[in-house]
Amino acid sequence: MRDYLSEIKNMSYKEMTALSDEIRQKIITTVSKNGGHLASNLGIVETTVALHHVFDSPNDKLIFDVGHQSYAHKILTGREDSFDTLRKFGGISGFPNRCESEHDVLNEGHSGTSISAALGIAEANKLAGNDNYAIAIIGDGSLTNGMVYEALNNCAHRGLKLIIVINDNEMAISKNVGGLPKYLSKFRVSRSYFRLKRSAKRGFRFIPIIGKPFARLTAGIKNAFRRAFVKSTFFEDLGLDYIGPVDGNNLKKLVLVLKEAKSRGDCTVVHIKTKKGFGYEQAENEPSKYHGVGCFDIENGAIDSTEETFSTFVGNTLTRMAREDDKICAITAAMCDGTGLTPFAEEHPNRFFDVGIAEEHAITFGAGLSVSGMKPVVAMYSTFAQRVYDQAFHDISIQKLPMTLLLDRSGLVAGDGITHQGIFDVSLFSSVPNVKIYSPETYSEVEKSLKTALSDNDFDIIRYPKGSEKSYTPSLEMIYDENNMYYYSSNIDKAKNVIITYGRITCLANEVINERKDDTALIKLVRIFPLDYEEIAKLCKDKELVYILEEGYIHGGVGEKLSGTLNRVAKNVHIHAIEGLLEHGELDDLYRICGFTKNEIISRMNNVC
Amino acid sequence: MRDYLSEIKNMSYKEMTALSDEIRQKIITTVSKNGGHLASNLGIVETTVALHHVFDSPNDKLIFDVGHQSYAHKILTGREDSFDTLRKFGGISGFPNRCESEHDVLNEGHSGTSISAALGIAEANKLAGNDNYAIAIIGDGSLTNGMVYEALNNCAHRGLKLIIVINDNEMAISKNVGGLPKYLSKFRVSRSYFRLKRSAKRGFRFIPIIGKPFARLTAGIKNAFRRAFVKSTFFEDLGLDYIGPVDGNNLKKLVLVLKEAKSRGDCTVVHIKTKKGFGYEQAENEPSKYHGVGCFDIENGAIDSTEETFSTFVGNTLTRMAREDDKICAITAAMCDGTGLTPFAEEHPNRFFDVGIAEEHAITFGAGLSVSGMKPVVAMYSTFAQRVYDQAFHDISIQKLPMTLLLDRSGLVAGDGITHQGIFDVSLFSSVPNVKIYSPETYSEVEKSLKTALSDNDFDIIRYPKGSEKSYTPSLEMIYDENNMYYYSSNIDKAKNVIITYGRITCLANEVINERKDDTALIKLVRIFPLDYEEIAKLCKDKELVYILEEGYIHGGVGEKLSGTLNRVAKNVHIHAIEGLLEHGELDDLYRICGFTKNEIISRMNNVC
Repeated sequence: MRDYLSEIKNMSYKEMTALSDEIRQKIITTVSKNGGHLASNLGIVETTVALHHVFDSPNDKLIFDVGHQSYAHKILTGREDSFDTLRKFGGISGFPNRCESEHDVLNEGHSGTSISAALGIAEANKLAGNDNYAIAIIGDGSLTNGMVYEALNNCAHRGLKLIIVINDNEMAISKNVGGLPKYLSKFRVSRSYFRLKRSAKRGFRFIPIIGKPFARLTAGIKNAFRRAFVKSTFFEDLGLDYIGPVDGNNLKKLVLVLKEAKSRGDCTVVHIKTKKGFGYEQAENEPSKYHGVGCFDIENGAIDSTEETFSTFVGNTLTRMAREDDKICAITAAMCDGTGLTPFAEEHPNRFFDVGIAEEHAITFGAGLSVSGMKPVVAMYSTFAQRVYDQAFHDISIQKLPMTLLLDRSGLVAGDGITHQGIFDVSLFSSVPNVKIYSPETYSEVEKSLKTALSDNDFDIIRYPKGSEKSYTPSLEMIYDENNMYYYSSNIDKAKNVIITYGRITCLANEVINERKDDTALIKLVRIFPLDYEEIAKLCKDKELVYILEEGYIHGGVGEKLSGTLNRVAKNVHIHAIEGLLEHGELDDLYRICGFTKNEIISRMNNVC
Repeated sequence: MRDYLSEIKNMSYKEMTALSDEIRQKIITTVSKNGGHLASNLGIVETTVALHHVFDSPNDKLIFDVGHQSYAHKILTGREDSFDTLRKFGGISGFPNRCESEHDVLNEGHSGTSISAALGIAEANKLAGNDNYAIAIIGDGSLTNGMVYEALNNCAHRGLKLIIVINDNEMAISKNVGGLPKYLSKFRVSRSYFRLKRSAKRGFRFIPIIGKPFARLTAGIKNAFRRAFVKSTFFEDLGLDYIGPVDGNNLKKLVLVLKEAKSRGDCTVVHIKTKKGFGYEQAENEPSKYHGVGCFDIENGAIDSTEETFSTFVGNTLTRMAREDDKICAITAAMCDGTGLTPFAEEHPNRFFDVGIAEEHAITFGAGLSVSGMKPVVAMYSTFAQRVYDQAFHDISIQKLPMTLLLDRSGLVAGDGITHQGIFDVSLFSSVPNVKIYSPETYSEVEKSLKTALSDNDFDIIRYPKGSEKSYTPSLEMIYDENNMYYYSSNIDKAKNVIITYGRITCLANEVINERKDDTALIKLVRIFPLDYEEIAKLCKDKELVYILEEGYIHGGVGEKLSGTLNRVAKNVHIHAIEGLLEHGELDDLYRICGFTKNEIISRMNNVC
């Protein structure tokens, strides 16, 4: 395996360009087979090469915000040979991962954290008195996230070796929204010429370029500076140095600005402009489509056509309901496509709000709509909803305001790994007073939950998994208790055991029951919180075993909540839930690790009794 | 009771000034007796009067960020006569409260939410096609909070009747930190003259002042404009109109700028400068001391001298420990005084970081320190820590990084009410993988917890209440299990019942046991999560009753976690925890409402068995 980090320090621009092309091809080939993040990774190849040319990882720390653009970094830091295992169980993670390499400083996966972390590292370096750098690489989309400002507000004038590379590719997951991205776009007017300026506080003087490699560039650049000083008051208002914008797919220019930033003694923003999908025509043309992709055909870019999913079903259903109820509003946080809301945005543009990567604001903005009599429906991924506990508590729950919060990609999530599992939402949100949580298994249950949520005056949360409804033949006849919103099987009186479960994993419970035949009954919850413990206890009375099967975190989960009451009435209660953090893998892998297989469950049932 | 809202619309400046003085006196008198927020409320009296003069509440919605500056608003909106019940049980809340008045749009108490909520209201007004305004009133301290930028980023060019009043009093709870406050302070250079500018996008034209009351002002103002256009690129970069700064204790100027802002068709920032503590000399001189106060002597401003509290004990202990361990860093989010960290800041300034009202950033910044080998200790109030679930999860837990998080004001909190109870932290943080939570009762247990936390490599959370350690004589001899970090009483084998509890409320359990004599044993947990359920089950085996007494929320609490296991071994298990949201009152009131009295507990014990 080549030692790129040593080689790259002495490479010519030509060699670095050739290396970038190689890396790009490797990324395209691998993602076409394994799926993953394509467009963002293609755009940032040259920047990554330039960063490793100028800086010295792992002494200097590179922190990729969100982390879905770290493929080139992985290839360059010892993971070229294993890169074809990308996103596979036991293979290379699609995000930075501390277990993989000392060059992955932190696991990343949620937006807006990189500058805060880099600032902490820079302060620690200063305290230790070393000369190492901390470099945050952050997309312009993440600039819609509030944490970034909290961090920027703490950077000024602290004498830190901290560099913030703003990778401006003119979009986040969805199209960027808001004032600041518009502001950045002002710089896009004249793309053609390299621009570089000194911070106003240092006066207008030229960059002291020292050393041979750059001698030939100097004259031209000086003229460029004269012509092209750019006014960036925004970052300077925050007390930061600013250089840019510069073409982030041009290695010469990149190396120049990064060396300049390195030569300064204080926090510096380097604004680069890259082209998402750079070097792969289909991704350049449709970067959003190729942001996160499944397998695709390299020749023509064809992606497997998408079937109906929970996301599209919810989006279409909500769009239809909003036709008849003009109070319904939809809000998302840069997840319009991902949560299926595109039809809603097209049909009801006045009632659709994509607020950027700003989950906290999304909820409180929804509170403002709600207090004015609208019916806000906020859709986001379960893992990103971990950001909104306090807003859900402070701005919805204690106000007793109606709101519907849709948690897409709840439960185990294939591919993305430890930062993206949607397994904590039940524990988290069941500690918000007055909340109702639904975890439907089927599209029709989703629709039922959505209707209930939009017709009551409560704070309702509906969670559903990534992907499609599973179709299977139920083993048992199920009776619906409308009041409590759960199903129980008609054999519940005579069965020896009961399995209690909810959501997607019900399918697995059904397999178990198929095998156990009549000795086991099933309770399937649709509304999972609050529960009438006593009603469920009646159904479980005197059973040999109540087996609670839960595709969610064990602490604070439904099993934990039920077990006190059920342990009084049943002989044995066994909670089978997820014990902790889970790395990436296919859903089958994740299920297997959690013991979510027919055989494991049957074996546990036999062991307990 | 006077109908101020009608009167105020037709008042002269002289009358409004007289009214402001009356309100100010009422605030000083009431706070001197009841305690509360003084300096911020005194500073904003004129602004509040001017807002009600220009706008029409409740059609126009006034949203006070954090809400601790809404006393004048309360007096003007029907709560003058009951104002002397401020912060008392059953009386007027110290924060906006929807239950009190239609003029309190939302309960507020946490920082940075007002613009998001106002934006939602403004969008709803636009959809409804009415002419109502939404007005957010937000202190400059809150501008260090990230949510504010998420909201500002969504305001631009939407044609909304939205006004953002930035109340710039040059400080938040503690002294302001960071780039933006410094930026705002640029405007403070020339205080003497009224300044007003039109947004650049509208060109430099004069305000069309129409109507009699202002005719006499016009000439002078025109000249002022000519001289005093201020360049505020920051807000304009975000696409917002900007007017200011203007003296926020001057009614004429305030009314003028508010009318101007109202006359515009789009989101406008009105930057006012007020003096914290205005009109009360002691508070003007020491605004931080008179931010939140207990009772004080109006004549000389004397405040009861403060005894040692958990906050000061923790601050002093940590300062001492940091002398011997140069890896220890302290971080807070604008709660330096409140969390007792002032001595640390003075003695170890290089290792002390007050990041502003930016709890999220505080944790991730700490992650950066931690990954670099430092030992970050982050201190904040329990209720504000609700903001950091995702950072605790994403930036500490899944990285397996050591950190110590101190949750001050955990448990029930007197006075402040529904937005400030620290009763959700156990439910919330016990759903973060790999966390350890300690809930010490005494200073010496706090010190023990802190030492444990700083010597292991884990994510440790230490929670303790507002106020001082309680001194009482324990009824039972207690045996310490060092491994599990809990105490159990020496009568545990022979006692019929067991009370399991932790933290401050142990004192109450002791009272109960005093009365019950030998039939009841006690288990006091110091480390409350994770627990060795089986070890505790051994202690509780065959007991008639296990009574779990918990000063925390019932769902996701320690009782819920223990009850499954204990219901298998004991005849009865009763969880006595807090069922939901709680309004303001003295600690005794809150304890009574929760049934946390000796008699209630004894009665429940008798009923269960």
